[in-house]
Amino acid sequence: MIQLPIKTVALDGDDTLWHNETRFHLTQAALRELLRRHVPDADVDRHLSDVEMRNLSIYGYGIKAFTLSMLETAIQVTEGRIPTADLDVILGWGKKMLGEPTELLDGVEEALRDLNGRYELLLITKGDLFDQESKLARSGLAEMFSGVEILSEKNEGAYRSVLRRRLIDPGEFVMVGNSLRSDIAPVVAIGARGVHIPYPLTWHHEQVPEAKMPREGWYRLERISELGVLLDAL
Amino acid sequence: MIQLPIKTVALDGDDTLWHNETRFHLTQAALRELLRRHVPDADVDRHLSDVEMRNLSIYGYGIKAFTLSMLETAIQVTEGRIPTADLDVILGWGKKMLGEPTELLDGVEEALRDLNGRYELLLITKGDLFDQESKLARSGLAEMFSGVEILSEKNEGAYRSVLRRRLIDPGEFVMVGNSLRSDIAPVVAIGARGVHIPYPLTWHHEQVPEAKMPREGWYRLERISELGVLLDAL
Repeated sequence: MIQLPIKTVALDGDDTLWHNETRFHLTQAALRELLRRHVPDADVDRHLSDVEMRNLSIYGYGIKAFTLSMLETAIQVTEGRIPTADLDVILGWGKKMLGEPTELLDGVEEALRDLNGRYELLLITKGDLFDQESKLARSGLAEMFSGVEILSEKNEGAYRSVLRRRLIDPGEFVMVGNSLRSDIAPVVAIGARGVHIPYPLTWHHEQVPEAKMPREGWYRLERISELGVLLDAL
Repeated sequence: MIQLPIKTVALDGDDTLWHNETRFHLTQAALRELLRRHVPDADVDRHLSDVEMRNLSIYGYGIKAFTLSMLETAIQVTEGRIPTADLDVILGWGKKMLGEPTELLDGVEEALRDLNGRYELLLITKGDLFDQESKLARSGLAEMFSGVEILSEKNEGAYRSVLRRRLIDPGEFVMVGNSLRSDIAPVVAIGARGVHIPYPLTWHHEQVPEAKMPREGWYRLERISELGVLLDAL
């Protein structure tokens, strides 16, 4: 693989630029608490996770999908004994999540400002179109990006088609994100490079055993503030 | 406005290429029936419509948004007296809608096959990303389009940005769709042309009084099979 200097830097949104998983985590804790009153012994986390995985091919990703899966879990785990008022509470959690301000991770604004001008910046994110556009708008970062791609799934084919459509050479492209599964593995597989910046929380669906990752073509940083130095060295 | 020969023909998906509103309509009738048992006098349609409009800026468009709004309506209209089992039924309706086969309108396949090669064909649709991609995949039409744009809102800015990004001259672009509000008015406003093919059912949110429409720049057909002849004459 010919290693060219990087021209285009694509960044993931959720848990790379702004906090996301933490919110799901907090809402899930509230669901656990709510359901405990009705079924003290239920394993709510496991049940919700099963429902989410089963619904992934029907609903896709995002907060609306999560809300629908929480409602389904609440009904199933309580065998229909959950009062309607509690389901209304869960509906409200979904709306609250959708309306929360976009909270940037530390150092994001400075890092993007530093890269802007030296590289072409893209946002490549996954999930619900409406929700992601709204988060980007509220982030204040929109004008830093020369393009935005919201994909329903981040796999090799999806990256390949973005690069082809934008006439980007994979050898000059790097993807920066917190998910080995969505941001790094498929990008390295198509001959581009990846920079993994882990987020303290990772949804189990996004986890890949390190042993299954390719040995070359990707880097790991602790924080986004280190990105400029790394990219300039590539 | 200089009228050039058309090069790019963009088509809307829902209710232009495949049936959509009919399904919402049928599900809404089932909701009316379900809620009538609990509150015989309630105006379910009006209430659901109010809830949907209120939620539009939170949820956006699509079946997941519709499902969440149906649940909210059911809880509110019955003042929380609806049994959980009925809410579970509503959740099931949403999943069923999401999984239904994409049912093409009459003449769509032939019309696209006729246009394909003579024009560059784009699909420009609105709504939930995951749902729309899944519908397109199930439609069997995907390989006819040289590009697909799924927008969260079809307004002047959104069309302008698609045309700019794809280097399309508005004078050589026509948008074909069933909604005056989303497919015709914004396109005519940016100097491109529109072809309106009404669908028997239109969601009230998509309705525009004819008197408010521009007098030139758009055409109306009864069926998509007439599209080729019109375009060749432009």
